[in-house]
Amino acid sequence: MSGTDGQKQGSRVIFNISKEKNFPDWFGEIVKVAELADIRYGVKGFTPFMPWSVISMEIMYDLYEAALQRKGHLPMIFPTLIPESNLRREAQHVEGFTPQVFWIREIGDGEELEERLALRPTSETAIYPMYALWVRSWRDLPMKRYQRASVFRSEVKSTRPFLRGREFLWIESHNVYATHEEAKAQVREDLETTKEVVTGELGIPVMVFRRTQWDKFPGGVDTYAADTLMPDGKLIQLPSTHDLGDNFARAFDIKYLNKDNEMVYAYQTCYGPAISRIYGAMIAVHGDDRGLRLPFKVAPYQVVIVPIVKSSTVEQVMNYARQIEDCLKESGLRVHLDDREQTPGWKYNFWEMKGVPVRVQVGPREVKDRTATVFRRDLLTKETIALDKLEEYIWELGADMDRTLREQAEARFEGLIVDAWSLEEIDKALDEGKVARVPFCTTEMAGRECAEIIKEETGGDVRGTRIDVEERAEGTCVACGKSAGAVVYIARSY
Amino acid sequence: MSGTDGQKQGSRVIFNISKEKNFPDWFGEIVKVAELADIRYGVKGFTPFMPWSVISMEIMYDLYEAALQRKGHLPMIFPTLIPESNLRREAQHVEGFTPQVFWIREIGDGEELEERLALRPTSETAIYPMYALWVRSWRDLPMKRYQRASVFRSEVKSTRPFLRGREFLWIESHNVYATHEEAKAQVREDLETTKEVVTGELGIPVMVFRRTQWDKFPGGVDTYAADTLMPDGKLIQLPSTHDLGDNFARAFDIKYLNKDNEMVYAYQTCYGPAISRIYGAMIAVHGDDRGLRLPFKVAPYQVVIVPIVKSSTVEQVMNYARQIEDCLKESGLRVHLDDREQTPGWKYNFWEMKGVPVRVQVGPREVKDRTATVFRRDLLTKETIALDKLEEYIWELGADMDRTLREQAEARFEGLIVDAWSLEEIDKALDEGKVARVPFCTTEMAGRECAEIIKEETGGDVRGTRIDVEERAEGTCVACGKSAGAVVYIARSY
Repeated sequence: MSGTDGQKQGSRVIFNISKEKNFPDWFGEIVKVAELADIRYGVKGFTPFMPWSVISMEIMYDLYEAALQRKGHLPMIFPTLIPESNLRREAQHVEGFTPQVFWIREIGDGEELEERLALRPTSETAIYPMYALWVRSWRDLPMKRYQRASVFRSEVKSTRPFLRGREFLWIESHNVYATHEEAKAQVREDLETTKEVVTGELGIPVMVFRRTQWDKFPGGVDTYAADTLMPDGKLIQLPSTHDLGDNFARAFDIKYLNKDNEMVYAYQTCYGPAISRIYGAMIAVHGDDRGLRLPFKVAPYQVVIVPIVKSSTVEQVMNYARQIEDCLKESGLRVHLDDREQTPGWKYNFWEMKGVPVRVQVGPREVKDRTATVFRRDLLTKETIALDKLEEYIWELGADMDRTLREQAEARFEGLIVDAWSLEEIDKALDEGKVARVPFCTTEMAGRECAEIIKEETGGDVRGTRIDVEERAEGTCVACGKSAGAVVYIARSY
Repeated sequence: MSGTDGQKQGSRVIFNISKEKNFPDWFGEIVKVAELADIRYGVKGFTPFMPWSVISMEIMYDLYEAALQRKGHLPMIFPTLIPESNLRREAQHVEGFTPQVFWIREIGDGEELEERLALRPTSETAIYPMYALWVRSWRDLPMKRYQRASVFRSEVKSTRPFLRGREFLWIESHNVYATHEEAKAQVREDLETTKEVVTGELGIPVMVFRRTQWDKFPGGVDTYAADTLMPDGKLIQLPSTHDLGDNFARAFDIKYLNKDNEMVYAYQTCYGPAISRIYGAMIAVHGDDRGLRLPFKVAPYQVVIVPIVKSSTVEQVMNYARQIEDCLKESGLRVHLDDREQTPGWKYNFWEMKGVPVRVQVGPREVKDRTATVFRRDLLTKETIALDKLEEYIWELGADMDRTLREQAEARFEGLIVDAWSLEEIDKALDEGKVARVPFCTTEMAGRECAEIIKEETGGDVRGTRIDVEERAEGTCVACGKSAGAVVYIARSY
């Protein structure tokens, strides 16, 4: 991985921006100085991702794909282009996505297509006509598949690298079942997968909601989504999973011969973890005022070795540093020896900004004592470790650091939710960066107007009802005063 | 990986098509019955790839990316869309690629873009404007990077799954150097990487050519490409690498401050292994009349276990089979126990067609003797192995099978090249499925007319001059009769 050690050696490396007080600046600046992405590409919402973020995102893809494969999903790869007629087969779906579609009509020097092709905004309408051919009998079910892909949506909201782009990186899993019950079980499995990967591996805590009927996936029956809390007090949606019922099966004619020899419609689900967005949330949640704090599991370099040399000791120290490098690499760690000409202090700042979890410092004293000084990025503390214990120590430290990042993030969730019984109380809660739990008339379409009132009066969005907690509605809707049918959560959000 | 064992249990599994005599049929049929891709997507040249091919292609990506990373290339991810003005900055490049470009002009319900966006046919014109910003000084060089991506070309030639699609899967490596010498060394390194991965890992032998000036990458200085031989006697181009000189650096203003404090143009190379095409060539080269023969290294299942049961022995045999499955999985093999209701004979045919390298058969006799019967797909032979030797035996067998596939493919290369001194002799050689080595006037642009004469008279294409063999031109050009300046190779090709 040589070359990721910052090409611009003269550039600013003492990063010092308050993440809590000024999150937009913090985010924009860390994306730039840590060389994660470059916003100067020149097409709104399209951003080249640079090696320091891509290496981590590739590991995140691996973690996610491994989890899906363990649960029986197989990879496939579908075309990026979808005929317009496919897109039009499910009425709500086309209505929901058409405003965001990039269309292709022209080829080469003026050839015109008979039918426009859409750049996929999501792939239901590419995949399901083929599923209609592939699913024949109950023996073919369940069909659990996924693809890694980039998708294209001309967002009207303002774009930001990783968090909201017009092209973003994701995985989309598309599944077919014989019964609605099995499809619903898949939805629960997807939510478990979210918790396993997003929280378990990456340390990002989430709250899981069933979205309202006006905020669900266009064409589906129900949408369930995991939200996390950003440093500016807003919620951001991480993976969502959709119970499609048999809506798409009817639109795309996905039928199977059941055991009674009848052709019946199948039931479907889809699930879409957006790797680039999860990466953006991850750096936002874990970063501090000095820059990135990358989880040990996904850091491009898990360990950086900084030699402390004077001209009289250079050979001795460098040999010792190389010996440590070899030994740690041997054990499977992603290690980098920083032998550039800058001072150790410059390098400390640089690698703290880049978020490398572990720094190993070695100078004449360490050579003499056969030790190493080990600095941990999460707590900014250091310890002296004997050389023969170093490898084992770092592996344990890595696991401990990932646990620490997760616990720190979870601590921010505590006390986050406050009950509110009126628009004023909601407003107050949101101003304090909290999430309001409120009685609400209904999450069916009839409740939409009340949500609009809340949005107008407080700036908060109805995120839906919790499914990981049982809650009974009491009292009256905060907006219309009718008897409350649901407990919903209100938050400012992305 | 459950579920890749063929959904259509009633479908034809005794595959029997002569690959040599009827390659187009063989290829089309194996793509269908082995469930590698589905040509019924409905957009010309766009083909969904199914799990049995995608799992292998993912492993091929891993092998290729690991090789590139070992050599210091870092991953990045660029947008799929390129502004038209970027594409127009290098005159030959735009001329070469524009006829194949898919253009985006419309968004959503009628919004029109001010500038058209191209779906990338290749990414030089997306990446190099950013390289112009990223490369500042000699310290930033070399810059060695790559991305995995799909690219889009509206081919006029007829399309075929994997071998030629309008969207295909590749890796593109883009590199910047201080000097032309270093860039040329990168070209040689790329050719080594091709041999390491394509021949070394996948067993596909190649001949390496420097292409003629009329057949090079549009905008580059020189193109070098590896060709392999398909069963129908035609050559197909596998990865090519391009020496771009400073042509693109001048067009995109990629300059660096050298050690003498002068701003000078950089030199560039790019390299494009197309994973989907290599997969197509791989199955074509190694397959036989019974179906696929997948290399052990990339087979989705390396081992399939087929239990041979009667009702009286079912429990005993299944327990034994599961014990073997666990033990082989434990050792890191990709193993599948086929416990479907079909007969063992049906399963043998099925998995031979799918190309699984090793079949382990276990019945009452094997249970009694604590053995397993091991069948190898490449040679269609079997042996009885003691249970406690099985794991080690299969790992060694796998390595031996990959060696065998490669040697069999290389044997077809022997005697392939014949010298020809006239158009008639070329014609005769090509009719015999050979590659003709001929004296030729020049591979500079002036030779183009002679290449057209050869194409018209013999159907053969000038593939270029060999760079892995030293050859001196003698005699006169087969087409124009002028003194020969080059030894070129003529073959029918894809």
